[in-house]
Amino acid sequence: MSNPKAAMLVIGDEILSGRTRDSNMHHLAQELTRVGINLAEVRIVADDRGAIIGALQVLAGQYDEVFTSGGIGPTHDDITADCVAAAFGLGLTVRDDARAILAAHYARAGTELNPARLRMARIPDGAVLIDNPVSAAPGFSVGQVHVMAGVPAVFQAMLAGVLPRLTGGQPLMSQTWRIMKGESEIAGPLAALAGDYPGLMIGSYPFNANGIYGAHVVIRGHDGAAIDAAMLRLAALFPA
Amino acid sequence: MSNPKAAMLVIGDEILSGRTRDSNMHHLAQELTRVGINLAEVRIVADDRGAIIGALQVLAGQYDEVFTSGGIGPTHDDITADCVAAAFGLGLTVRDDARAILAAHYARAGTELNPARLRMARIPDGAVLIDNPVSAAPGFSVGQVHVMAGVPAVFQAMLAGVLPRLTGGQPLMSQTWRIMKGESEIAGPLAALAGDYPGLMIGSYPFNANGIYGAHVVIRGHDGAAIDAAMLRLAALFPA
Repeated sequence: MSNPKAAMLVIGDEILSGRTRDSNMHHLAQELTRVGINLAEVRIVADDRGAIIGALQVLAGQYDEVFTSGGIGPTHDDITADCVAAAFGLGLTVRDDARAILAAHYARAGTELNPARLRMARIPDGAVLIDNPVSAAPGFSVGQVHVMAGVPAVFQAMLAGVLPRLTGGQPLMSQTWRIMKGESEIAGPLAALAGDYPGLMIGSYPFNANGIYGAHVVIRGHDGAAIDAAMLRLAALFPA
Repeated sequence: MSNPKAAMLVIGDEILSGRTRDSNMHHLAQELTRVGINLAEVRIVADDRGAIIGALQVLAGQYDEVFTSGGIGPTHDDITADCVAAAFGLGLTVRDDARAILAAHYARAGTELNPARLRMARIPDGAVLIDNPVSAAPGFSVGQVHVMAGVPAVFQAMLAGVLPRLTGGQPLMSQTWRIMKGESEIAGPLAALAGDYPGLMIGSYPFNANGIYGAHVVIRGHDGAAIDAAMLRLAALFPA
């Protein structure tokens, strides 16, 4: 499998403190799976300059695509653009095209482009803007690092603009079989099945429904015929 | 602030593929905040030996406590115990006390302790067991690394057993003020307020409710009187 590998960096004190629950990661995971990009790692760090810069440098060195969420708004705790510029040694200045987007947006709304709003037009040198159809202030891509907002509606709209630019891979297909037995009863035959299909990924995800143990077995891969064949064997081993 | 710092390592293909949504992170974040331990970083990696071992070594080198979830069940894709042993150069063998717990559990259930189930009694040398009141198979702590199950009910039960052993810090207090203005209208006064209270963390979290922009401003810290004072100034700046 030579699908592109991706990482996500979530920037947000509010998630680490338990105040809010992240939903951007789940959305990104589903969208990347759909286009055949393999989300291999997620990191969540605080609104801390050193932590953000360190993670950006490590992830950009290891992955084909890096997606960030959070920290690009107008307030004092929004430091992601500064950190991206510092991580990759780039200047960060108010750019004319970004300023024009904000000026038009606030003119329509009848409010002024004040200094806080103008902060959102600061773009690292050489970056490509990411369109924000929800609230105007753009995200940006620096090389393979795509910097997006944390508000879910904005994150999703920005991602929809970025994905068509990227080179995907073969979509990962999957089928799931629900088995009403505890994992430890199915582990032996499942390991044998996995051994017979080294090209597939066979995962077992236990659950407990009303006190009864069961497992969802998920067979994933790029070869639909092989998935079908393995699924038939699985269903014969553990009939519904 | 010298509260202990913690990290979490979530092990799970099923989260990175978008198949399931993690909930253990949110639970851990809330519990740690309550006892004054600062969750500073979360990493999510695939069921991949190299990725798990690498993350374990880095996080154990940087944080006072490390919590893992996932990959300690009986199936072939459960490799966390093997990775913990490898990461810290420890042996991994079936341990008598863990075997006794499983034997008693399966005897009560009238089923046999088969080889798949016995895998769950493999414990790294020197580890301390973590009680599992839900489904018996124990977690374990190796030094400051606490290895727990991924099934949310089991993760939560194990965490409840681990937390009383740990040294917490001063609980982090917080107050929230809801402001029905866009972030860019409040950014200036908010930055000034943050400058006047360097001992507090003042964060702004935007939202969009039925097309109206607003922000939750959260003031966090260990000094309740300072939080109260800052909150009064905030409420005067932006009355409800």
